[in-house]
Amino acid sequence: MTFKVKGFAALDPKSPLVPYTFERRDIRVDDVEIDILYCGVCHSDLHQARNDWKSSIYPVVPGHEIVGRVSRVGDKVTKFKVGDLVGVGCLVDSCRHCHPCEQGLEQYCDHGAVLTYCDTDRYGDNTPTFGGYSEKIVVTESFVLSVPENLDTKAVAPLLCAGITTWSPLHHWNIGKGSKVAVIGLGGLGHMAIKLAVALGAEVTLFTRSAGKEQDALRLGASRVVISTDEKQMASVANTFDLIIDTVPYTHDLKPYVPTLAISGTLVLVGLIGDLEPSITTVPLVLGRRSIAGSNIGGIKETQEMLDFCGKHNIVPDVEMINIQDINHAYERMLKSDVKYRFVIDMQSLKA
Amino acid sequence: MTFKVKGFAALDPKSPLVPYTFERRDIRVDDVEIDILYCGVCHSDLHQARNDWKSSIYPVVPGHEIVGRVSRVGDKVTKFKVGDLVGVGCLVDSCRHCHPCEQGLEQYCDHGAVLTYCDTDRYGDNTPTFGGYSEKIVVTESFVLSVPENLDTKAVAPLLCAGITTWSPLHHWNIGKGSKVAVIGLGGLGHMAIKLAVALGAEVTLFTRSAGKEQDALRLGASRVVISTDEKQMASVANTFDLIIDTVPYTHDLKPYVPTLAISGTLVLVGLIGDLEPSITTVPLVLGRRSIAGSNIGGIKETQEMLDFCGKHNIVPDVEMINIQDINHAYERMLKSDVKYRFVIDMQSLKA
Repeated sequence: MTFKVKGFAALDPKSPLVPYTFERRDIRVDDVEIDILYCGVCHSDLHQARNDWKSSIYPVVPGHEIVGRVSRVGDKVTKFKVGDLVGVGCLVDSCRHCHPCEQGLEQYCDHGAVLTYCDTDRYGDNTPTFGGYSEKIVVTESFVLSVPENLDTKAVAPLLCAGITTWSPLHHWNIGKGSKVAVIGLGGLGHMAIKLAVALGAEVTLFTRSAGKEQDALRLGASRVVISTDEKQMASVANTFDLIIDTVPYTHDLKPYVPTLAISGTLVLVGLIGDLEPSITTVPLVLGRRSIAGSNIGGIKETQEMLDFCGKHNIVPDVEMINIQDINHAYERMLKSDVKYRFVIDMQSLKA
Repeated sequence: MTFKVKGFAALDPKSPLVPYTFERRDIRVDDVEIDILYCGVCHSDLHQARNDWKSSIYPVVPGHEIVGRVSRVGDKVTKFKVGDLVGVGCLVDSCRHCHPCEQGLEQYCDHGAVLTYCDTDRYGDNTPTFGGYSEKIVVTESFVLSVPENLDTKAVAPLLCAGITTWSPLHHWNIGKGSKVAVIGLGGLGHMAIKLAVALGAEVTLFTRSAGKEQDALRLGASRVVISTDEKQMASVANTFDLIIDTVPYTHDLKPYVPTLAISGTLVLVGLIGDLEPSITTVPLVLGRRSIAGSNIGGIKETQEMLDFCGKHNIVPDVEMINIQDINHAYERMLKSDVKYRFVIDMQSLKA
């Protein structure tokens, strides 16, 4: 059983996104159907629409920062009822039985988590997955998040990807009161990393190549901005940071950052950047017990913890609202980093 | 005040070590004078004797795996008395006041720890430091370790460097019962890493390029040997290890090892290997929250914990005893990895 859903899709790598109607599965016993209110626009959406990662399954209906209200529930659903404000992030299923899944780390599922779009419902009926640039989505309740009602609903969506991607390393590496955190890059992820780290009690520094970012970084809660191309400024923060969250989404040189880590500090990459190059010298690693690590989004349990934390501290991203009809223009602006700091689609515009 | 001490020294980078008499400081109020019984032979000794690191201060009296008995103590010494069995490792002092020192991580002292030889007594009288290839050494009691009497004394010496260098990462990354540990390389450090990890309750795998190492690795307690150049064997241990201790002391490719780390696992380099090359791809780091880290020897507190642990579990290195007159020949054999697994000098031979 399926039903028709309106959305926007990329039909091939070269064409703009266009209106597209497709079939979704009807609700199974453990499923929640969600009327989508808002969907954030992530860089991955653009990469997948254009097949930049050579793994896209067309048509691509992007969107994995989804907020909406429950419109139907399956017979065995216990966590949600019709009308609840909920979210869906990057994952819609996983094997649920491997060691990572049992630890709540579904993003690292040994058998592969099912992505919200551009993937196949491998633990279900093997149909393609379609994302949040659409009216409705159907997801097993185990992968649906509860969204605090006190937050500005339209701004919540990017927490489901940009939020959890930066929260997970902050949480894993025990950042809290008195920690010293640096963030590389002030985009969708970077601005969330600053807000979350500050709310956790850390002293936060922004590394940036552009002097123009200072005012904004301080407004977001950073206590200092360091121009990463300025050797003198970099030397002034040697041996400082417990954690550096590197949000830059392309290959870049990590060498200047590693010596700014404190003893036992970690530089964590939250995006794939290809090879580490120029290659990293091992001297500052060994002589300071420093680490270079990676981290990929976050699990369902910690995503809920992050949403609850944001509810408590009233944290949401800075967003710019668009209509779905503006999505292709938004992609062009995103490529130029011309957004502060995340586009969110008002999904009511689909009805226009 | 100084006194004369007999030893062996490298007088320049090209010549063999020769008998050499030099001056040590007389004991200060907090100093312990030690009659050296045994001194282990570390690869660093050879590097420093030959100025491989371009930082040697000649004459070089090497040796930082020192075991002996206390022969005199300063007026304010409280931890030791004449006759105690004690050890000295790679460090003989540090600033004692910085954040790492206060945490017992003197090896990462912000102002630089003082090395046992080829260094300058920067927190004392600025004289050069001379190592354990000698009759006696004078060290502040804070950097002297207590050696369990139940251990085979002549085999204890390498614990002070090879032992602590592998213990520190095992301890820092919480290895214990049920952990899965791999060790790269079966030399002085590798064989200690196996013994210590096994005693901590871990299941231990040896990565090696030489099939001939299997029997020895199993004897030392490893449960498996994987030939690192065999892609099939490497694939069979994908996603397995909580910690990989990499003891290989030269530049090598880490790429094949990183995917064998479990989710959240760490590969730790315990020696400087120059640049990481070929450069590491970030994919297995991000998609498995894996880390590449470094670790440098260990602090005084954890060195004492390691010695006490070895006393309790009756762990000592496998050693081959030599006389000091054989040191130049031992260096040649060490260069060919022709030692199982550490040379120890019987310092009584100095009197010959």
